[in-house]
Amino acid sequence: MSANTFGKIFRLTTFGESHGKAVGGVIDGCPAGLLIDLDFVQQQLNRRRPGQSGITTPRSEADEVEFLSGIFEGAATGAPIAFMIRNTDARSQDYEHFKDVYRPSHADFTWDKKYGLNDWRGGGRSSARETAARVAGGSVAQLLLSQSGIIVQAYVSQVGKVKLEGNYTSHNLDDRYNNPVRCPDAETTRNIMEHLEEIRLAGDTTGGVIDCVIRNLPAGLGEPVFDKLQAGLAKAMLSIGAAKGFEYGEGFAAASMLGSEHNDLFKGSDEKLLTPATNHAGGILGGISTGADVFFRVAFKPVATIMKDQITADKSGNPIILEGKGRHDVCVVPRAVPVVEAMAALVIADHLLRNRTSKL
Amino acid sequence: MSANTFGKIFRLTTFGESHGKAVGGVIDGCPAGLLIDLDFVQQQLNRRRPGQSGITTPRSEADEVEFLSGIFEGAATGAPIAFMIRNTDARSQDYEHFKDVYRPSHADFTWDKKYGLNDWRGGGRSSARETAARVAGGSVAQLLLSQSGIIVQAYVSQVGKVKLEGNYTSHNLDDRYNNPVRCPDAETTRNIMEHLEEIRLAGDTTGGVIDCVIRNLPAGLGEPVFDKLQAGLAKAMLSIGAAKGFEYGEGFAAASMLGSEHNDLFKGSDEKLLTPATNHAGGILGGISTGADVFFRVAFKPVATIMKDQITADKSGNPIILEGKGRHDVCVVPRAVPVVEAMAALVIADHLLRNRTSKL
Amino acid sequence: MSANTFGKIFRLTTFGESHGKAVGGVIDGCPAGLLIDLDFVQQQLNRRRPGQSGITTPRSEADEVEFLSGIFEGAATGAPIAFMIRNTDARSQDYEHFKDVYRPSHADFTWDKKYGLNDWRGGGRSSARETAARVAGGSVAQLLLSQSGIIVQAYVSQVGKVKLEGNYTSHNLDDRYNNPVRCPDAETTRNIMEHLEEIRLAGDTTGGVIDCVIRNLPAGLGEPVFDKLQAGLAKAMLSIGAAKGFEYGEGFAAASMLGSEHNDLFKGSDEKLLTPATNHAGGILGGISTGADVFFRVAFKPVATIMKDQITADKSGNPIILEGKGRHDVCVVPRAVPVVEAMAALVIADHLLRNRTSKL
Amino acid sequence: MSANTFGKIFRLTTFGESHGKAVGGVIDGCPAGLLIDLDFVQQQLNRRRPGQSGITTPRSEADEVEFLSGIFEGAATGAPIAFMIRNTDARSQDYEHFKDVYRPSHADFTWDKKYGLNDWRGGGRSSARETAARVAGGSVAQLLLSQSGIIVQAYVSQVGKVKLEGNYTSHNLDDRYNNPVRCPDAETTRNIMEHLEEIRLAGDTTGGVIDCVIRNLPAGLGEPVFDKLQAGLAKAMLSIGAAKGFEYGEGFAAASMLGSEHNDLFKGSDEKLLTPATNHAGGILGGISTGADVFFRVAFKPVATIMKDQITADKSGNPIILEGKGRHDVCVVPRAVPVVEAMAALVIADHLLRNRTSKL
Repeated sequence: MSANTFGKIFRLTTFGESHGKAVGGVIDGCPAGLLIDLDFVQQQLNRRRPGQSGITTPRSEADEVEFLSGIFEGAATGAPIAFMIRNTDARSQDYEHFKDVYRPSHADFTWDKKYGLNDWRGGGRSSARETAARVAGGSVAQLLLSQSGIIVQAYVSQVGKVKLEGNYTSHNLDDRYNNPVRCPDAETTRNIMEHLEEIRLAGDTTGGVIDCVIRNLPAGLGEPVFDKLQAGLAKAMLSIGAAKGFEYGEGFAAASMLGSEHNDLFKGSDEKLLTPATNHAGGILGGISTGADVFFRVAFKPVATIMKDQITADKSGNPIILEGKGRHDVCVVPRAVPVVEAMAALVIADHLLRNRTSKL
Repeated sequence: MSANTFGKIFRLTTFGESHGKAVGGVIDGCPAGLLIDLDFVQQQLNRRRPGQSGITTPRSEADEVEFLSGIFEGAATGAPIAFMIRNTDARSQDYEHFKDVYRPSHADFTWDKKYGLNDWRGGGRSSARETAARVAGGSVAQLLLSQSGIIVQAYVSQVGKVKLEGNYTSHNLDDRYNNPVRCPDAETTRNIMEHLEEIRLAGDTTGGVIDCVIRNLPAGLGEPVFDKLQAGLAKAMLSIGAAKGFEYGEGFAAASMLGSEHNDLFKGSDEKLLTPATNHAGGILGGISTGADVFFRVAFKPVATIMKDQITADKSGNPIILEGKGRHDVCVVPRAVPVVEAMAALVIADHLLRNRTSKL
Repeated sequence: MSANTFGKIFRLTTFGESHGKAVGGVIDGCPAGLLIDLDFVQQQLNRRRPGQSGITTPRSEADEVEFLSGIFEGAATGAPIAFMIRNTDARSQDYEHFKDVYRPSHADFTWDKKYGLNDWRGGGRSSARETAARVAGGSVAQLLLSQSGIIVQAYVSQVGKVKLEGNYTSHNLDDRYNNPVRCPDAETTRNIMEHLEEIRLAGDTTGGVIDCVIRNLPAGLGEPVFDKLQAGLAKAMLSIGAAKGFEYGEGFAAASMLGSEHNDLFKGSDEKLLTPATNHAGGILGGISTGADVFFRVAFKPVATIMKDQITADKSGNPIILEGKGRHDVCVVPRAVPVVEAMAALVIADHLLRNRTSKL
Repeated sequence: MSANTFGKIFRLTTFGESHGKAVGGVIDGCPAGLLIDLDFVQQQLNRRRPGQSGITTPRSEADEVEFLSGIFEGAATGAPIAFMIRNTDARSQDYEHFKDVYRPSHADFTWDKKYGLNDWRGGGRSSARETAARVAGGSVAQLLLSQSGIIVQAYVSQVGKVKLEGNYTSHNLDDRYNNPVRCPDAETTRNIMEHLEEIRLAGDTTGGVIDCVIRNLPAGLGEPVFDKLQAGLAKAMLSIGAAKGFEYGEGFAAASMLGSEHNDLFKGSDEKLLTPATNHAGGILGGISTGADVFFRVAFKPVATIMKDQITADKSGNPIILEGKGRHDVCVVPRAVPVVEAMAALVIADHLLRNRTSKL
């Protein structure tokens, strides 16, 4: 029972492989009347697009999105919104030497075990190229959130051993897309660029962390007991190929805190203004948004394709030396920033609509 | 659109509040023919049960489970398996003083915002008592996994500031339930017990971390692209009330690793034996199990109810001093161990069945 | 992948067998704040209850419903509403002689083929007793519909060869539950009673038809393209064990009509009043309610258990004579009336909530 | 909560409007390894295609399908299979005069009520053009059924007042696509052609009935209690725009039968051969297939667009005369035959996969 659909009410179904004809998707459940700003969708796709700078893969895809249905006179009609992005720069011949070997730490091995066959060209469906459809779909979700003033902002807070100091309240996130690292701090950005260049020269790769904040979220989103808001966000983030961890609020640090440190006490002069004075909780209590900022962090592993030789075994179990070649990112984290935003927006858009049925 | 059902094929629907008549659930999709070992179900419930030791709440619930349907001559029939656990020691009068105040860092506030009303007796549906139904349902899932030799073992690896050294390979997990902390190491257990006693005397609470390993999992479980195995586990874990973070494999540490360090190379003399030589991946590639152990960690926040006075605001926004009283755990993490096992088992059981439809 | 849950937003999960401990269910997604009129629920159950009159089975079940969760101070809280009805008059010994034979036209054969085993006591899960849980759940849905003034009224329009003349507009449906046949016309009721007595004396059974009308439905309910309102109703009705056919509006008669006969033209002096002048459509166009009455008909087959000997084969394929004995209805259709109402209400309640997310 | 996805495991999501860029769909859950016979898919589309004969609309669409993903070296990979059919002969100007009037018995009115806006060009999403995507998706389901020898055959059994005598056992269904009526009997076909020509000359339209049989179905398909096989078929058929009724087995005729007439007794010399001697049931008992042929009938209403003037009201409620013009079928039933087959195949394919999880 496969799973290429995300969400319950605002639903995105995606399709497409790295070296197939196209990647794309169908959005079902977008409320009729939403104005679809095609430029915004394309802008988010451009931010994920390969070939943008020295730190991303040189594969060059225009990633131009074509909408096929569900929009009439600029607005969503209530019918499904289908879109596609043609693949143009796939070079399957680069992958011929992978026909007989499972690339280490890639999905070739498990895909083959599961399905009994594997489209080995560029990772097929397991390629990060699949995330283009998430970004296109998620950017429509972001347009829906904008109607309620909700803002989703992700940024890079760590690449390899270089970490950004402070949390989201310490930085101006509006500038995060102005540099190829997608980091809001200029000095940290420079350090990361240097770090990445060293790693690239060594033929290696590295991982990183993306932080994300969701502002202006109304109280009441999230569905006990199994679709708590944080559960939806965790699933969304861990569904991104390279993600290895998720934490929200104080996260793993909460494990060693005392209750008296972690509790958020209330303040306020009347019921309307009643809000927690602090936000250790990360904007969610009992799985439901409090009205405070929701913030979370996502850890990413290093890119598995490296430019170094690796001693591994081929599909028959014979030891071989796998040469490092191909076109890949040194670190995927900067390009994953719009993906994190897209997935977060999909979760919130879905819960925004789900919450319409909570009360009489 | 509420969410009290977990899973797609092996599905658990739960119900019940802390101070209602009962908590319980309905399992739909359990394959016919599975022998239901009622003693095992009760044993897992006993491990979660309050009132077991000095470090848990003195609320005393027998937590005796009654099965109502779906079992004939000891085996699952294919019909839904319903069960219930009557509440017997609820003391609603203990909560009378919370009618006019939202307890800090509890779900009273958000539940009220979402639903326009709130069953304030003992946290209602947002009480950890809800997890009894997860354990009962999850233990049936564990019985299904046992048929395939799959073993799920969780244990406490951190309480407050005391951490267990080493990962799951360093300890004998069979003994984890022999002490109230659910920690496989005797010395760490003693340190945790001391640490908890200090915190209890101070009227405070703390959090912790649970590690979990799933052994003997066949390769091929997990559904790209949105229901990757780790995405399902992350959602399951973050759906537990107090959970704040999830990581698998190298987790957050992977962010600062190099690709050449993190990659798991293959070894093996023939195709059957082909397996990764290391397991930085945590047993999952491309969202699909590799056949190696799956391991992950879950962080928990401190218990919100403390025995200290707290300066907060009542529902009208007036500042008040909230007295510390009631019956609560100093640390919920030991009792959450069977809950983590139950949720993990539910995820795996579901994917085991889902995977039956992957191929012709 | 079994299916004991009905609905997408307003969801009913049912459980229980004829001769198990109880039948019951869990309603998830009932909007918080709905007042739960327990007397109404019990009244609907009483209308379905066996042992009410000479034309129903003498099995005597009080069918007293116990609510276990989800209600606080008389209102739905947003948490799942669980309920159960204990079985009290099951006589499994009556079924001992069915251990070795599949009862003709019952589900014993297919259940065994599907699951590899069969709870042969009283039909197990395939017994009509299962519908008690539908009625309890559906009556909560009816309470939700009442909030919007929506009324669901089913009645018997045919039993065996006796048919009621005219459609729902020709009769006063308020009296339909005043006689054991659940037919709104006194003379037809008498004829049906006589017809049933003849059939009973002959040791035989028969089928019938139930008509249903839904009034005061707002325009806009139904979800193109697959969850059209009529598609949901058709599924709901055909999920009732003995149902063999469904038609709405002109139904099968529409097949031989001309477009110029069947079309409903608009009348009205302003946009608000714009409604179809006739209602051949049955209140639905393009799968969406028009605001006119929705009406449909459901055909039921004869009860399979007859009091005559039948020449059939046992489970080993040996010819045997199956004696007619046990406690059964001569015609199940009168008792199915509240079941049809319940299922219709579940469909409408679900679409009422689903429709809240159609527009910005 | 919109619904453009059909099925639980074998799932088809469709998109597209009559006058948009394309119609198409995404199949998720097709088992890996299935050979995709593109010629068969195109053949089924051709059978639904407009402009084929004098009795269908002259709108001329090549309906050439393009597959975008999920197929590698001729076989399904387990990844979603996306496809699209470009619209080429849409003439939106034909619909300009419908901007201010709701066409009688069309979905313009209800779509507007539901979504607050309406793509009035050619019916938008509510156009029968949407069924092209069902046929493409359903034909992939048919390929899956072929693997198990299952055959789905629909045919026209009534058009307007002309009815075909006998049921599916009386005719050779292999020839049904050899004439434009899709009727297996030559004389009835001639009568229908004459009947349709008369109606066409009168500027009118009519309805009809399609019969369908599913052969070689294994016993065991169907999911109690809500997803009974007939419930799924009923939903599938009633989701087709013009369908007004569904019956299976004896259908509405069963209502007036006696139990002793309707019961199917068993015959057989050993357990393997045990089958019902008759098939009044229509191949399903307790919602589960018996192994006998499943057969059902679907009633269709007359086409709403007629070539006669109609006195109706415009959107402001002012009376107007609506002229009859445009390109439409006199009777949609012949073109609906591959649609019925497609929807039936989708139901069966889904249940075939669902049934893989019923037993240990």
